[in-house]
Amino acid sequence: MSIDANLRERAARVVPGGMYGHLNAALHGPSYPQFFVGGQGCRQRDADGREYVDLMCSWGPVVLGHRHPAVESAVTAQLAAGDCLNGPGPVYVELAELLVETVPQADWVMFSKNGTDATTQALMVARAATGRTKVLMAHGAYHGADPWCTPGPAGTTPNERADLAEFVYNDLASVEAAAAGAEGDVAAIIVTPFKHDSFEDQELPTPEFARGVRALADRIGAALVIDDVRGGWRIDLGGSWEPLGVRPDLYAFSKALGNGHPIAAVTGADSLRGPAQSLYSTGSFWFNAAPMAAAKATVETLRDIDGIALMERAGTRLRAGLAAQAASHGFTVRQTGPVQIPWLSFEGDATLEKGMFWAGACLEEGVYLHPWHNWFLSAAHTDDDIDRALQGTDAAFAKLRARFGGD
Amino acid sequence: MSIDANLRERAARVVPGGMYGHLNAALHGPSYPQFFVGGQGCRQRDADGREYVDLMCSWGPVVLGHRHPAVESAVTAQLAAGDCLNGPGPVYVELAELLVETVPQADWVMFSKNGTDATTQALMVARAATGRTKVLMAHGAYHGADPWCTPGPAGTTPNERADLAEFVYNDLASVEAAAAGAEGDVAAIIVTPFKHDSFEDQELPTPEFARGVRALADRIGAALVIDDVRGGWRIDLGGSWEPLGVRPDLYAFSKALGNGHPIAAVTGADSLRGPAQSLYSTGSFWFNAAPMAAAKATVETLRDIDGIALMERAGTRLRAGLAAQAASHGFTVRQTGPVQIPWLSFEGDATLEKGMFWAGACLEEGVYLHPWHNWFLSAAHTDDDIDRALQGTDAAFAKLRARFGGD
Repeated sequence: MSIDANLRERAARVVPGGMYGHLNAALHGPSYPQFFVGGQGCRQRDADGREYVDLMCSWGPVVLGHRHPAVESAVTAQLAAGDCLNGPGPVYVELAELLVETVPQADWVMFSKNGTDATTQALMVARAATGRTKVLMAHGAYHGADPWCTPGPAGTTPNERADLAEFVYNDLASVEAAAAGAEGDVAAIIVTPFKHDSFEDQELPTPEFARGVRALADRIGAALVIDDVRGGWRIDLGGSWEPLGVRPDLYAFSKALGNGHPIAAVTGADSLRGPAQSLYSTGSFWFNAAPMAAAKATVETLRDIDGIALMERAGTRLRAGLAAQAASHGFTVRQTGPVQIPWLSFEGDATLEKGMFWAGACLEEGVYLHPWHNWFLSAAHTDDDIDRALQGTDAAFAKLRARFGGD
Repeated sequence: MSIDANLRERAARVVPGGMYGHLNAALHGPSYPQFFVGGQGCRQRDADGREYVDLMCSWGPVVLGHRHPAVESAVTAQLAAGDCLNGPGPVYVELAELLVETVPQADWVMFSKNGTDATTQALMVARAATGRTKVLMAHGAYHGADPWCTPGPAGTTPNERADLAEFVYNDLASVEAAAAGAEGDVAAIIVTPFKHDSFEDQELPTPEFARGVRALADRIGAALVIDDVRGGWRIDLGGSWEPLGVRPDLYAFSKALGNGHPIAAVTGADSLRGPAQSLYSTGSFWFNAAPMAAAKATVETLRDIDGIALMERAGTRLRAGLAAQAASHGFTVRQTGPVQIPWLSFEGDATLEKGMFWAGACLEEGVYLHPWHNWFLSAAHTDDDIDRALQGTDAAFAKLRARFGGD
């Protein structure tokens, strides 16, 4: 029995189903390992000692690569001094100043732990500011796993979702209709920086949509919230809609902010400072200094090495390589989303039969990517790493061809 | 200007109000420092270099003392191997097994980050199991800071609290009445292991109350949830109601579980395994291995050194010393709660005038405790530490006497 299988067997006795949530290997495919024991740069090692070129980056958090020396030495030094104390450390101020300096939209910052903390807190700020209740969100968008937003309905009540109304991503008319339906009671419009729903091709926002939701929020006096938990720190260090020239009232960040160390943040505009101050929002570990030291080192390093450019370079190389391979093996594929947060799907593969087979074949070839969730690149992915990944994906396309033929 | 004052001035520009939540020094009293730079054992050092005997333990998380070698070496080793990976590490299984072995009520475990994650997740399990919506909770009880439970109403909507009904702690008839009012729709009764509401004397549960809510939950087919976030790992390693012989269906743990490292857990009975498995509940950092290594080392150490007995010894010594001092200075005080999670209030001090003055005087004397929130002891508080604290509290009583006279 493999070590992974043995661990799964033990886990099944002491955790419901053995595992849960987005890292549950049972959701990914039959050959996915569940347990991991190490990471270095853009490589990860599973419990049975197999090493992968990692194209998932732990579903986003790892943006500089595993065990990045600047981040880890900042964490080690902070842990040695003190982490969870009766108040925050100076690094709380330094990190808040760094974020306000780095994100043009940000006049202030509030920290928390989970991405869900940040999206939930952002909506609380919007509701406190407006005295209204309703939130408009895109159908199918993932904003976290609290009862109000978890994609699974189990354990939630109708009341917990009664203050939401849905629109269709990139369809401004549908946002206008949702706002009209809420009859003057819209506290916030929450939107991801691009459409990154699972099981679907990704979709960049049209400039009309981005500018349109901004104008609509202004017109109806609602807050515009960008849920940048998944996109943040990979698209633009100033916030993922900064390249579009559209600034939200609130950004929700987490995942990559601390290169894997647990931290989340809401940044806000000055107009929302008072309402933000009126909240009672807190957590036992929200002011721990070590993850703040990690976040400070992460953002400074991304800035100093131009991490976004490195990820774009890696993503562009990967996309071009995959496109050429797919064509040469006779498959029509779609590659969507920003190149640094990519996804690949097969034409006419609604059942994901090809996608699952190909992703499983990539695993066998030492490349860890995902059949129905977007991937993530890091600043640690060099040309050589991408070329190594492309060797694996090429062999996987060949296996796919042998199994299914071309399109 | 002190370093603390300078940091506050900078913080006020980049965080709403400079600080928020339970560690906001503005809530504690005028002389409380906001910023801390280090901790060792049961001592903490603020940004201006003042050292305190710490009777708050970072509001609970620090149960073995700061920088406990077994915990920190486990964390360091895990960080060096890998922390935030594409799946959990073996320590996830080991920790779950340890909790199931340590907590007699526990047949399974689910991990998360915040205490609020655990209480929220426990209610989701209860709702998934029963198909019902309503939750009964004690009036004034703190169960976290999500919109459904945060003590401040700012930013919350009526719908988010519509599924709650309240009872009075230790008043079984009021729980029965709340259940009757919910007309067969009660998913859960959530209760803290003892009454530890802010601004009030603490109250231990009567055996009749504990047995009564258990029997009521059984009778109406609801889940009994103990929110052991604050009490857990200080009263009984088997869960805080284990000494009462009353086992809930679900325990919510956090705070002390990882000695300051961010982790939370729900433990549950076998009957709820299926419903728990039906949830979609997750977070970006919930499966990080380092905080799990911290929790494993914390629970093992508490067990091996009989940490509960050490805390009881320290708490008993503190309570006796404070009682003698109060009497000798002519004050009538009430000391409530378990000795290891103590609080002291002054007779006839509804405005907290004496309590605030005395706590401020304790600070001046190098003792960090709190005027309106319960305190926390740790296994690192030796007799000498308690005696050092008592020197400070004695001087503070003398100052109080000089200012107010006796009762």
